[in-house]
Amino acid sequence: MTGTIETYVRQNEARFLDELNEFLRIPSISTLPEHKGDVQRAAEFVAAKLTAAGLDHVEIIPTAKHPLVYADWLHAPGKPTVLCYGHYDVQPPDPLELWHTPPFEPTLRDGNIYARGSADDKGQMYMHIKAVETLRALHGGKLPVNVKFLIEGEEEVGGASIAKYVPQHKEKLKADVALVSDTALYAEGIPTLCIGLRGLIYTEVECTATMRDLHSGLYGGAAPNAVFALVELLAKAKDSNGVIQIPGIYDDVKRPDATELESWDTLPFEEASFLKNEVGSTALTGEPGYTVLERIWARPTLEVHGIAGGFTGAGSKTVIPAKATAKVSLRLVPDQDPGKVIEAFRKFVEANAPAGTKMELRVLNGGPGLVVNPSHPAIATAAEVFGKVMGRPTVFTRSGGSIPIVGDFAEHLGIPTVLMGFGLPDDGLHSPNEKYCLKNYYTGIVTIAHFFERYGA
Amino acid sequence: MTGTIETYVRQNEARFLDELNEFLRIPSISTLPEHKGDVQRAAEFVAAKLTAAGLDHVEIIPTAKHPLVYADWLHAPGKPTVLCYGHYDVQPPDPLELWHTPPFEPTLRDGNIYARGSADDKGQMYMHIKAVETLRALHGGKLPVNVKFLIEGEEEVGGASIAKYVPQHKEKLKADVALVSDTALYAEGIPTLCIGLRGLIYTEVECTATMRDLHSGLYGGAAPNAVFALVELLAKAKDSNGVIQIPGIYDDVKRPDATELESWDTLPFEEASFLKNEVGSTALTGEPGYTVLERIWARPTLEVHGIAGGFTGAGSKTVIPAKATAKVSLRLVPDQDPGKVIEAFRKFVEANAPAGTKMELRVLNGGPGLVVNPSHPAIATAAEVFGKVMGRPTVFTRSGGSIPIVGDFAEHLGIPTVLMGFGLPDDGLHSPNEKYCLKNYYTGIVTIAHFFERYGA
Repeated sequence: MTGTIETYVRQNEARFLDELNEFLRIPSISTLPEHKGDVQRAAEFVAAKLTAAGLDHVEIIPTAKHPLVYADWLHAPGKPTVLCYGHYDVQPPDPLELWHTPPFEPTLRDGNIYARGSADDKGQMYMHIKAVETLRALHGGKLPVNVKFLIEGEEEVGGASIAKYVPQHKEKLKADVALVSDTALYAEGIPTLCIGLRGLIYTEVECTATMRDLHSGLYGGAAPNAVFALVELLAKAKDSNGVIQIPGIYDDVKRPDATELESWDTLPFEEASFLKNEVGSTALTGEPGYTVLERIWARPTLEVHGIAGGFTGAGSKTVIPAKATAKVSLRLVPDQDPGKVIEAFRKFVEANAPAGTKMELRVLNGGPGLVVNPSHPAIATAAEVFGKVMGRPTVFTRSGGSIPIVGDFAEHLGIPTVLMGFGLPDDGLHSPNEKYCLKNYYTGIVTIAHFFERYGA
Repeated sequence: MTGTIETYVRQNEARFLDELNEFLRIPSISTLPEHKGDVQRAAEFVAAKLTAAGLDHVEIIPTAKHPLVYADWLHAPGKPTVLCYGHYDVQPPDPLELWHTPPFEPTLRDGNIYARGSADDKGQMYMHIKAVETLRALHGGKLPVNVKFLIEGEEEVGGASIAKYVPQHKEKLKADVALVSDTALYAEGIPTLCIGLRGLIYTEVECTATMRDLHSGLYGGAAPNAVFALVELLAKAKDSNGVIQIPGIYDDVKRPDATELESWDTLPFEEASFLKNEVGSTALTGEPGYTVLERIWARPTLEVHGIAGGFTGAGSKTVIPAKATAKVSLRLVPDQDPGKVIEAFRKFVEANAPAGTKMELRVLNGGPGLVVNPSHPAIATAAEVFGKVMGRPTVFTRSGGSIPIVGDFAEHLGIPTVLMGFGLPDDGLHSPNEKYCLKNYYTGIVTIAHFFERYGA
């Protein structure tokens, strides 16, 4: 060994940042067809960097939508194998006018990199590649563990291709543990492993009321209105306390055990600051009788992400709209079965379509929630290393977000996942001015390299 | 007199259609700023045609928004004066993809002229000019009555300029009766005078919930959602029967008298055909205990004309939207005071804004409903002439639409309005494939010319 991990990362900081910036400049928005070429470019960037870091068998694997990137390094016989997962696609940047600097022109301000995808997930997945580079440089081209990389370009659109790929390539992907960096520290300076995720069902509900838009003077009072019908349906789906009104929806919802709930109570949490600095509103919402952390980590939700129908231009147009559409999702907690929830929602939509309207429910994607066991050796090792690097004990949290691939790794490869993320709660994922703390980018590379070393020891 | 009205109109049919087509080709969409030049061009077209028809004092009057066009012919001393009103602006044509032929390329199919504005109101207001031309041609340049024309370009956006102009020019506009052709026959072949109109208040409700869009995984369950909050508010404003839930909204609503209601019962009305051929749905909606005609002619309504918020592109984006907006109108019946209704709605919006949200109500325009007396001499004459031309007795109806200028003429000029329209119920005003029956265009010119003659006799 020719130096320490810390020294190598410090000496290469400028280049590590330049490379990330180059990655962030690619607008790899997976949901927008006009960015298909950019998504492909991002895959090629990842493949090139895996090759440069000394990985073998680097492949860009075509799929029905966006490519997967695979690579491995398997020259540590007898040592465990880590499957590194991340995604190179990003969310759309709109509303563009709220960005202080352009979303695909990474800008350093106050120690943060502002760019779409900086935290979710380009900045985080790229740490894995740089950790491999670091260890190979220090160990004369060798790694303390075997590694496989599987990086996808459809995480933000449901991940259909990787979900299909994993069960078809169990032998190729065989590993002892998966490593995912797509979550956040509980707070700045607190080493955090996420051991639970919510699932997600994402749908579109389209309402058709009449054969065409109608004049509201001539037909108002007798004709069904597609926008209002959709409004009526959605308002019935959740009460003003956030309690979902779909029959049976809470049947399989179990609360976390007392130990886990108690550990959450010891986490620093200031509701006033959460409200003001993160949510940016005047009041929180949600089910009475549950703490904020339980509401966002371990309770199902129903959200309307967008709605459109009728005339929305400047000025006035007096139509009764014929059609309206809403994007509606349900977040699921472990033990809720996505198929069962979809059926319950479908029944609810059908049963509550107002007179004269037809409601079509389209399920865009879905996956279950899950929890992992914190006493698994890889997770325990990660917790130990993480705490040592950051100088205080690692806390175990959950995330209310969804990383469907973690469930697939458990189901098809039989392995747990270390969810070791270095984001911060106010990174603004999916929002304008998404950022990633530059210090955490470097700390992440250091921590992951130490994790590989310790796990291989 | 050198011929009959009927003969002159028949001999000039082709030219009358060519001129109307030229008018319809101008996309004079008053609500869209990018069409300001087209609206101006339409005003110039009207002014040129008034001049060509032999009217004096033709003026294009600039206003804060779109111009008014004025003209008169006052060489019939001792005869009554008719104030002809119409509008040369049109509604936006969207959704464009539903038009079978382009909205501003008038197309003749099955005896109908398909174009935006063909029935509402270019095709109808242009009949007045052609009736004047016809009479002057037959009477050696003279007319049997005095006429004044006041044509506006803001009817589809609330008519603020004409509403300001009329009270400031009472002497100039002095007349015995106003004539408006912006309504429809009750059904093909039935001469119809409209004696009642609903008023309209058109608003935008904007909801702000958070300082930015949020990730629904990380904040779902605790953060307010602007789209859902707006949905909750709107769903509370009207129940599933169409009964408006704004406190006090029905206080001043009076039902039409028994004679009028009974006369409506004698009108041919087939609910099944209305539902299938006009509304194009599977069920009608609205307040139980009122006939369809009463619901659309003489009951207040609340409609959502459009709604927008959050992510509405292709695919999925898991945001909790920060902002959402809806276009909401209330139709008013006579005796409801628009100011009072606006205040009641404002209070309702404020009182029902969900926790964590701010609702802003912007009133875009408003005007009262009204009824006119069918026994007024001008209206009685119109009914007699109309019945004679079409060969059956004229029926008196109301319209659920709003023509605010009719209220202004009553209030500021002290005159009633003859609402003599030649549209048909299925003309598709404000909808794709708006049409106007070509036969009714010619019949309208004939009937209006006869009305001028008989009213001047």
